[in-house]
Amino acid sequence: MTSATAIALLSGGLDSATAAALALEDGFRVIGLSFDYGQRHRRELEASAAVADHLGLAEHHRIAVNLAAWGGSALTDAAITIPTDGVQDGVIPPTYVPGRNTVFIAIGLSLAEARGAERLVLGVNAVDYSGYPDCRPDYLHAFQDLADLASKAGREGHGTQLWAPLVHWSKTRIVEEALRLDVPIQATWSCYSGGSTPCGVCDSCRIRDAALREAGRADLCSANQP
Amino acid sequence: MTSATAIALLSGGLDSATAAALALEDGFRVIGLSFDYGQRHRRELEASAAVADHLGLAEHHRIAVNLAAWGGSALTDAAITIPTDGVQDGVIPPTYVPGRNTVFIAIGLSLAEARGAERLVLGVNAVDYSGYPDCRPDYLHAFQDLADLASKAGREGHGTQLWAPLVHWSKTRIVEEALRLDVPIQATWSCYSGGSTPCGVCDSCRIRDAALREAGRADLCSANQP
Repeated sequence: MTSATAIALLSGGLDSATAAALALEDGFRVIGLSFDYGQRHRRELEASAAVADHLGLAEHHRIAVNLAAWGGSALTDAAITIPTDGVQDGVIPPTYVPGRNTVFIAIGLSLAEARGAERLVLGVNAVDYSGYPDCRPDYLHAFQDLADLASKAGREGHGTQLWAPLVHWSKTRIVEEALRLDVPIQATWSCYSGGSTPCGVCDSCRIRDAALREAGRADLCSANQP
Repeated sequence: MTSATAIALLSGGLDSATAAALALEDGFRVIGLSFDYGQRHRRELEASAAVADHLGLAEHHRIAVNLAAWGGSALTDAAITIPTDGVQDGVIPPTYVPGRNTVFIAIGLSLAEARGAERLVLGVNAVDYSGYPDCRPDYLHAFQDLADLASKAGREGHGTQLWAPLVHWSKTRIVEEALRLDVPIQATWSCYSGGSTPCGVCDSCRIRDAALREAGRADLCSANQP
């Protein structure tokens, strides 16, 4: 029997790697998709290749779409400072990239449609990223409604399903699942700052390190990352 | 008073040029956005630059996103033949590119959000392209619902509005408006076939030529295009 296909968006970070590992556990043939969007933290592109390799994905595509062309985010515009003073509740941080998730999911749906994939696997997480409008469940539901109209298969009721298994999970639960599923945590990359080692102080490093400590794996924290 | 900004997706074709001209007539400062997506008919990229120049757009961005990487369409895959035997009602033609409009609109929304644009101007037309699922009004309404959740401005009720003024128009009405608005019809490019002159027999040439003849401008038909 041929396995059903899933497309997994891989950022190189821990969340998307864990979501892809969950789809593999469900028996899908998983194709990874990563984006070169002009991000400062290009190290994450190497990390996504390492994750795809470690998990044994069927294919891994990397596609360029230069969202840095119009700036608007600390992640793509060197003139905007990456914040290091912690996350504020309900405030959109300067690391938000306008329309990034919408573009990535749209491109993922294109690949999914071309390959007849049943699932589009997303690592989005609404608990730690509640400041981002495009990580929330209502946004994902609206995208599913769009996907159901955007293709012939969708209109016929057998289109691609967006699947965001971590959306309601705490970072600590994600770390615990990553450990259970043998996700290569040390090979993933979460830091926003664009250095060759994790800074340990950007929002992304802080959230990740706190969860690793809570899961009893302080040894995997950014300070100890190779 | 500063004009409001609109982003206009420009394919290089007649429809998107006419939609952009309508936004200019409405007083918007219009920024053009075109896509290099691995299409065979790359001549349309030159046409989009000529249209932006002729209409006097404020800026014109060209962004690469290689949807040809996974094929699936006669427009990006040289192994699939471009049909020349006319449009069939309700059938998706092989020139359909999986997810193309979803990707283009998503990228347009990213630029619109970065610039605080009020409108995203689309040349989509449901009358002549009823075979394409992503040209229909219900699809555009679902995309508006998504856009309203995808950004902070959208959630606050002042996000970007998708604007598709031609959606219910016949091609003949589009040609008549293009003539009224001094759209450079001869500089636009509609042919799918990828030659240096329009083929006159692909669906896109057929629909365009029939409308030009009906509008009394057979002199602008593909056979006479420079």
